[in-house]
Amino acid sequence: MSDHSALIDLPSLDPLFRPRSIAVLGASSSPTKIGGRPVAALIRNRFEGAVYPVNPRSETIQGLPAFASVKDIPAPVDLAICTVPPGAVMAVLKECAEKGVGALVVFTSGFAEVGEHAAQEAMAGLAREAGIRLMGPNCMGMVNFGSRAVGSFHPAFAEDVVPGQIGLVSQSGAFGGVAYMLARERGHSLSYMFTTGNEADVDIGDCTAFLADDPDTKAILLYMEGCRNGPKFLAALERARESETPVIAVKLGRTEAGAAAAASHTAALAGEDAVYDSLFRQFGVYRADSIEEFFDIARSCVIGSRPVNERVAMVTVSGGVGVLMADDANRRGLEVAPMPEAAQRRMLELVPFAAARNPIDVTGQVLNDPTLLDQAIELATGHGDYGSVVSFQGSIGRNPALMEATRSAWIERKAANPAMHFAVAGFCTPDYTRDLEAAGIPVYEEATHATRAIAALAGFARSFRERRPRPAVPGAADLPVGPVNELGALAAVAAAGVPVAPARRARTAAEAGEAAAALGFPVVLKVLSADIAHKSDIGGVRLGVADRAGAEAAFGEIVAAGRAARPDAAIDGCLVAPMVTGGVETILGVQRDPVFGPIVMFGLGGLFVEALKDVTFRAAPFDEIEARAMIESIAAFPVLTGLRGQPPADLDTLAAALSRLSRFAAANADTIESLDVNPFLVRPEGALALDAVLVTRPSGAP
Amino acid sequence: MSDHSALIDLPSLDPLFRPRSIAVLGASSSPTKIGGRPVAALIRNRFEGAVYPVNPRSETIQGLPAFASVKDIPAPVDLAICTVPPGAVMAVLKECAEKGVGALVVFTSGFAEVGEHAAQEAMAGLAREAGIRLMGPNCMGMVNFGSRAVGSFHPAFAEDVVPGQIGLVSQSGAFGGVAYMLARERGHSLSYMFTTGNEADVDIGDCTAFLADDPDTKAILLYMEGCRNGPKFLAALERARESETPVIAVKLGRTEAGAAAAASHTAALAGEDAVYDSLFRQFGVYRADSIEEFFDIARSCVIGSRPVNERVAMVTVSGGVGVLMADDANRRGLEVAPMPEAAQRRMLELVPFAAARNPIDVTGQVLNDPTLLDQAIELATGHGDYGSVVSFQGSIGRNPALMEATRSAWIERKAANPAMHFAVAGFCTPDYTRDLEAAGIPVYEEATHATRAIAALAGFARSFRERRPRPAVPGAADLPVGPVNELGALAAVAAAGVPVAPARRARTAAEAGEAAAALGFPVVLKVLSADIAHKSDIGGVRLGVADRAGAEAAFGEIVAAGRAARPDAAIDGCLVAPMVTGGVETILGVQRDPVFGPIVMFGLGGLFVEALKDVTFRAAPFDEIEARAMIESIAAFPVLTGLRGQPPADLDTLAAALSRLSRFAAANADTIESLDVNPFLVRPEGALALDAVLVTRPSGAP
Repeated sequence: MSDHSALIDLPSLDPLFRPRSIAVLGASSSPTKIGGRPVAALIRNRFEGAVYPVNPRSETIQGLPAFASVKDIPAPVDLAICTVPPGAVMAVLKECAEKGVGALVVFTSGFAEVGEHAAQEAMAGLAREAGIRLMGPNCMGMVNFGSRAVGSFHPAFAEDVVPGQIGLVSQSGAFGGVAYMLARERGHSLSYMFTTGNEADVDIGDCTAFLADDPDTKAILLYMEGCRNGPKFLAALERARESETPVIAVKLGRTEAGAAAAASHTAALAGEDAVYDSLFRQFGVYRADSIEEFFDIARSCVIGSRPVNERVAMVTVSGGVGVLMADDANRRGLEVAPMPEAAQRRMLELVPFAAARNPIDVTGQVLNDPTLLDQAIELATGHGDYGSVVSFQGSIGRNPALMEATRSAWIERKAANPAMHFAVAGFCTPDYTRDLEAAGIPVYEEATHATRAIAALAGFARSFRERRPRPAVPGAADLPVGPVNELGALAAVAAAGVPVAPARRARTAAEAGEAAAALGFPVVLKVLSADIAHKSDIGGVRLGVADRAGAEAAFGEIVAAGRAARPDAAIDGCLVAPMVTGGVETILGVQRDPVFGPIVMFGLGGLFVEALKDVTFRAAPFDEIEARAMIESIAAFPVLTGLRGQPPADLDTLAAALSRLSRFAAANADTIESLDVNPFLVRPEGALALDAVLVTRPSGAP
Repeated sequence: MSDHSALIDLPSLDPLFRPRSIAVLGASSSPTKIGGRPVAALIRNRFEGAVYPVNPRSETIQGLPAFASVKDIPAPVDLAICTVPPGAVMAVLKECAEKGVGALVVFTSGFAEVGEHAAQEAMAGLAREAGIRLMGPNCMGMVNFGSRAVGSFHPAFAEDVVPGQIGLVSQSGAFGGVAYMLARERGHSLSYMFTTGNEADVDIGDCTAFLADDPDTKAILLYMEGCRNGPKFLAALERARESETPVIAVKLGRTEAGAAAAASHTAALAGEDAVYDSLFRQFGVYRADSIEEFFDIARSCVIGSRPVNERVAMVTVSGGVGVLMADDANRRGLEVAPMPEAAQRRMLELVPFAAARNPIDVTGQVLNDPTLLDQAIELATGHGDYGSVVSFQGSIGRNPALMEATRSAWIERKAANPAMHFAVAGFCTPDYTRDLEAAGIPVYEEATHATRAIAALAGFARSFRERRPRPAVPGAADLPVGPVNELGALAAVAAAGVPVAPARRARTAAEAGEAAAALGFPVVLKVLSADIAHKSDIGGVRLGVADRAGAEAAFGEIVAAGRAARPDAAIDGCLVAPMVTGGVETILGVQRDPVFGPIVMFGLGGLFVEALKDVTFRAAPFDEIEARAMIESIAAFPVLTGLRGQPPADLDTLAAALSRLSRFAAANADTIESLDVNPFLVRPEGALALDAVLVTRPSGAP
């Protein structure tokens, strides 16, 4: 992607998200009506700014003086909340423009979500002209928990709001309400809640960027059904990475049934789920599959420090639960490394029957000696270079005889090792949990939720640590417009800096023979035509041609086969290339994604892609380190490391090719519709593109 | 497997698990000491039978008359609980034998888990001779919640026990205690808890079989680190399937780190995790990855009816949560089928902006009309042939204005449709949850836990529905003992009834030429030797030999290559076979598993097995329907259905081959160490074994 920071105008979001004064347009005296709820919530929560109910038919609303029009308000208005019927929205928007209102939240439904795109575009256009940022329509609004600006009609805000450190952006109002309730249930709260509705102007990207820059927000939760502006969204994720703010996303449509349900639920948000999944990986976003997971990871980010490495020590009062955690941690990429021998010996001196390796099982002996747990934790803290120590302590956090000692031990341990991530799993009293969490130690009832969270936090730490500047993008190439034959496609691949097999064009049988002789035998001949996609299917390919006479004969045969199969095709002669074998066949592809722009795909050739869909994607451009991560992320990666005694494939050359292709794709984002290099043969030393297909588009096409 | 019901002697377990009288050997007056805890718990819980403390140094123990020896007890003793030190165990066991005690629970540690195998075997041998069933040693005992027979020293039983309907078997005492506490936390309890410890006699298989037959147990939870007697365990699972008792297992060691940790934690339980995973699938066991999941599925089994099919309707107050559930359900194999058109129209009449397909989103309108939820559920109940209806209802179960109407609606709806599975997700008051669950409707806070449970229950229903008698096993074949060459291996494959490519042995070049001519060209020649495993690597294979002279020449070359590479090898000449190409290369394998006996493996040939470990296993014997399920369970299954315009592979022939191989493996379980058919070429019509390796073992070898 190019530099997209220009896509996000943060200062303009301030009146919307940090309003000092709020007008409620269509305010109602009834605190249960949609027009009355924000007024009631702002009063109840003692919003720190001014509140102006607007209703031409009332003198006062819920005890506050009401105004006939927003224009009558004798002070500046940062934010206006619009609760009027759809037919009246344009009129009040005009008044807001005249008044100089900074931002508008539109609860009102009846726009794009029911097909009224023109009405929505008219509204958005007017707001844009007037410099008004617009949230909605068809949304549940926003809440700034710090200033207690409750610009939402969700029933959850009929109760007092409490400020927290988790920022929530939801494309669904109802989901936002559920997530907020779950947060309250667990004793946590939010810094901001944004529900973006139809996203006529302010979208998930704007909100994410705002939260990334917000000092009160320590984790960002995204609920998304899709994305309207891919580059802006990616720029926002990049900002979050810059400010080291973890992002956790629930993205609907992981399965086909889910995607179908999402499509029928939302206003047609495009984008393939596998692409989202890969981009989340590229930008360090944690993808959650349940509401509970979504929120649990966020609260762990808020409470706990991020581990400095992937090594985790496990101290447990149950060997079985210890192994369960080890399985889970391992599956999630953490390293359950053994304690150093000396520390193991020390542990066995404490409890001869203990498991001392890791997990460290202090056994039921802890009931007789409550200090054992802390002694084991001390060993794990001081030895083995662990970034995290997690303890499953059964019901000790509830056991009157044991809980006091362990509580103070934990708190002291954390104070002495602030950079180490500590986590506790087990049954604990609410007090015990509160004290540990206040000290920076997240507590979980379920042991595997502790390991899940540690893996997530370690992943964030790695992503932040490994953030690098975007690679330079070369100038745009001079790509042909219209159909391109294989030679043209390979030329584009070569222009990208990706190694290409030497290939020559032959227009006659004699030229074919000459070219073959010059390249050296055996050779392969293919009919050359931008109009024939599957050349082998029509007999347009000859492999392993052994001599000049064979090449000359093959030329005539395959050109004839091409003519016979596709009389309408423009045939540009024949392509002659050396017969290259050995190595691993891979596929490199560029696709112009309708949401995200140029996306690079990587997978192994053949059945791995077709049968297993074992491919991965990245947004262009990216560097060779990211390319390497991409290569290692496919399931079939072991094939490239050398199976059955084969030498390993040249991964450096492969990574360089992917990165170069991505930079080329970014440079020519406007003209490349797709570019597939298939196969890209990766050999023990070097690699070669053997075939390619390029589809271009006129620059500036929609 | 052959008929293993003989492996399980249920009546002998009655004194152990349903004792009418319990003696505590080494009883203590202190209710917090290990010898005092069972006495205290039995008294506190008013165990319905007799309790006899045994301690030579006390007249009374905790208010009960004490006896110097078990032999002094003037009444029959069903169960003796042994809490004495390891050195005293044999003496009290002898007294138990003399007394005619029915069963013994041994808490005492210091046996196999610390390497004292001989002591353990002596104890087990003595018990066996005396007809005493023995649980432990090194265990936390058993609890029969119905009769309140608390034969455990786990601190969790210092409180009153309440009978439930979940049977728990745990190889780890500590884990058993944690699971019991979690159950109590959620308002549920157990029917039995068994902790099996070192399993000198009674093991996880015995306990599972007992619970499968127990009328009070509606679901079985297994915590296992491994299995000592595979056939007995599988027979127990088969019994549970017969009695339609769902089994949910946590099995440690899913990952390599987990397996390593488990190995260091437990007394060396063998068995590859992938085999367990496949067997769980074969026997309809649900495998859980967390303690929370483990218990949550069990309670769903106890509360809810099993769905009659995989079709699930979703009614939601949040479109987003609806799609999240749809994604989760789909991923777990449920069918989120759309409602019939007429029902969709009716829904849209109720709420014009509703999503009516499925998920059915009644939207926030439900706040204005609380009957909407029930009307949508009525539609889903009456149309579309759904086996399950799940509703995400936000905080309605807590909303004073709405909860009464929905509570009674749910309960009536379930009473009117007892065969339909209903589930509710959302925030509910404890009362609301209790009432719904009493009516047979499980309640979940997390929406995706509802879909997870429905998928599990539907899986159990399918497994019970599809239970079939074991296929007949043929008589044992006359397999050679000692090294077998390829021809012998292929002969064994043919004897199993699996199609084999015609192949001939040639002892001379002339015979090779003759054989080739008889088979028809092209042919393939391979050196024939039981001592050379990787024939291509040493130049021992010639592919595509086109004529008689070529065959004669090839014979000399490959025999020479064999001699050169392996001068010590016995070379039996050459194998001549027609050159067969086309179709999909698969691998069929038989392995004698140290735990489970003959296990059949299936996967695709080539890199799918080596790079992706994309294989599946089943215990032998199995029928063709199970073989078909096996084939469909690998990730690369689409390759067999015909990709790239290829015709589909002959799955009937493949399934028949797998089933026949499995019956052959069962028939010759004692003599086959391994039999690999690789490749087994599956063509559009028919299939052929092209190569095989057989390793036999002397009958009766350990």
